[in-house]
Amino acid sequence: MNEKEWLDYVKKYLFEKKPVIKAGNEDCAVIKINKKYLLFTTDALVENIHFKLSYTSYFDLGAKLAVSNLSDIASMGGEPKWALLTLGSPQKIRKDWIDPFMEGLTQTLEKYGACLIGGDTVKSASFFINLALIGETYNPILRNGSKPGEFIFVSKHLGESSAFLRYIKKGIPLEKIPENLKKAHLRPEPEIILGKMLSENKLATSMIDISDGLLLDLWRICEENQIGAELIENKIPIGKYTTLEEALSGGEDYALLFTVKKENLEKIGKLSQYLNKPLFCIGTTIKEKKLYLIKDDQKIQILPRGYIHFTK
Amino acid sequence: MNEKEWLDYVKKYLFEKKPVIKAGNEDCAVIKINKKYLLFTTDALVENIHFKLSYTSYFDLGAKLAVSNLSDIASMGGEPKWALLTLGSPQKIRKDWIDPFMEGLTQTLEKYGACLIGGDTVKSASFFINLALIGETYNPILRNGSKPGEFIFVSKHLGESSAFLRYIKKGIPLEKIPENLKKAHLRPEPEIILGKMLSENKLATSMIDISDGLLLDLWRICEENQIGAELIENKIPIGKYTTLEEALSGGEDYALLFTVKKENLEKIGKLSQYLNKPLFCIGTTIKEKKLYLIKDDQKIQILPRGYIHFTK
Repeated sequence: MNEKEWLDYVKKYLFEKKPVIKAGNEDCAVIKINKKYLLFTTDALVENIHFKLSYTSYFDLGAKLAVSNLSDIASMGGEPKWALLTLGSPQKIRKDWIDPFMEGLTQTLEKYGACLIGGDTVKSASFFINLALIGETYNPILRNGSKPGEFIFVSKHLGESSAFLRYIKKGIPLEKIPENLKKAHLRPEPEIILGKMLSENKLATSMIDISDGLLLDLWRICEENQIGAELIENKIPIGKYTTLEEALSGGEDYALLFTVKKENLEKIGKLSQYLNKPLFCIGTTIKEKKLYLIKDDQKIQILPRGYIHFTK
Repeated sequence: MNEKEWLDYVKKYLFEKKPVIKAGNEDCAVIKINKKYLLFTTDALVENIHFKLSYTSYFDLGAKLAVSNLSDIASMGGEPKWALLTLGSPQKIRKDWIDPFMEGLTQTLEKYGACLIGGDTVKSASFFINLALIGETYNPILRNGSKPGEFIFVSKHLGESSAFLRYIKKGIPLEKIPENLKKAHLRPEPEIILGKMLSENKLATSMIDISDGLLLDLWRICEENQIGAELIENKIPIGKYTTLEEALSGGEDYALLFTVKKENLEKIGKLSQYLNKPLFCIGTTIKEKKLYLIKDDQKIQILPRGYIHFTK
């Protein structure tokens, strides 16, 4: 099974009745408790699959585990709260690596208002780390809720995390890799404040965090809403030292992708000023269930997996 | 670091201020939300460390992952609610094994009132499964709260799970292993109902689930309360085909161990009748911070790790 097949398969085992508002197909499960909603997410990182210790410090690893989970909470407009860590380690736990790892994890959680409150440690042939994180919100922003004719925003320059890996694969030493790429891959920042403000002010009709690449995550939004999208190529915020392909299909951006009604565009502009942070309008949602890239006077159909197919 | 060293070490990274009532040193983290308490626990199982597929079916594995987490909720007197699964697999996910695994997991969760609402799947060189489980209670039973002169109860015959592994290590085929041992190891039952009734009726002053052996888990209770305990050997419910040593130090019993004030002994008797389930009084708490086993007219000091040292 590939990831999509798995998500389809597992649905029948997920409980999605009151008070559970959302189980599958979201960044977090959503449970209604009184007037609030509990957000519940988990994300694991495995050595040599998700990271290599040759270029990731233990501090950065702890931080990244936090961010990958925090970003799921951000993408629903939530406030992160409580976390449990599972640590599977083939080697004895020694202070030389566990100290920086725990510092990276807990400092990053605390920076965004969350805290570690327990966990489990186990022996394991491969080194893996798993975080389970609970968040809260009064207004969860789901993937569905968008209609054709809305504006698509992203919150960051895209593709830099993926570009970092291109440098690594070429064998370029860390100190020679551009700072913006290192930061994007090794010290990404989750969009907790932005997500929360979009939720509180009800400015986004749908939202997701870009973890598998702009096109794929945008397509998830489209599928949930039975719509398509048109992106304007020169509006896409491509990171420095980054290719268009990386911006479209690279992963681990931890940016928010969200849709906004026309009537709220002005408020989005004000929010951007207030946060002193650019928010990039990259296109619009359309009725036709396809993805297009508009490049000069050409309209190019693109497939979600990043494969580009020219129609004109 | 061994487990105890780890628990001591990690404390400084755990947040334990309002509304977090308990972070380390409990089976679950406890968070106060309005009048209720949220319980939050996670437990991982790793192939060849916690189980072998040679004697564990995928259905039983799913069930066991559920039980190891459910038992943590039971030990605080909670109701299990929502769970997230992390699945790390070296092989492609195929229906022949994922079907029974998911059935075992979700049927067991549902049997005790919990449900699966999401998760994460990752590639991994070793096969591991992790569950994060949220529960609720109005009255969490913590490990501390007990004083000298109280009565110590356990809720099950002990040592059978450990005895099962003795048969396995001897190379005895599954079909020749006594049923009670197979059931104890492969299909253990978490004490959700008992835990909940002890909580609702405020009958236990402290509680823990026996996952690392009677002595070790009893000693955890003693340490939390700065007390000791005297056990009466012939009151300890040793399982059939099980040794005293296995009952004292074998793990994975998923029994509840709890302390009861004298004034509540009658109520415990009635609860036992009501549930149609024996509850075994195995000794009393004492002021001296030691463990003793009373055997005929001998009083033997025992060490928590199971090493028996005769003093008289």
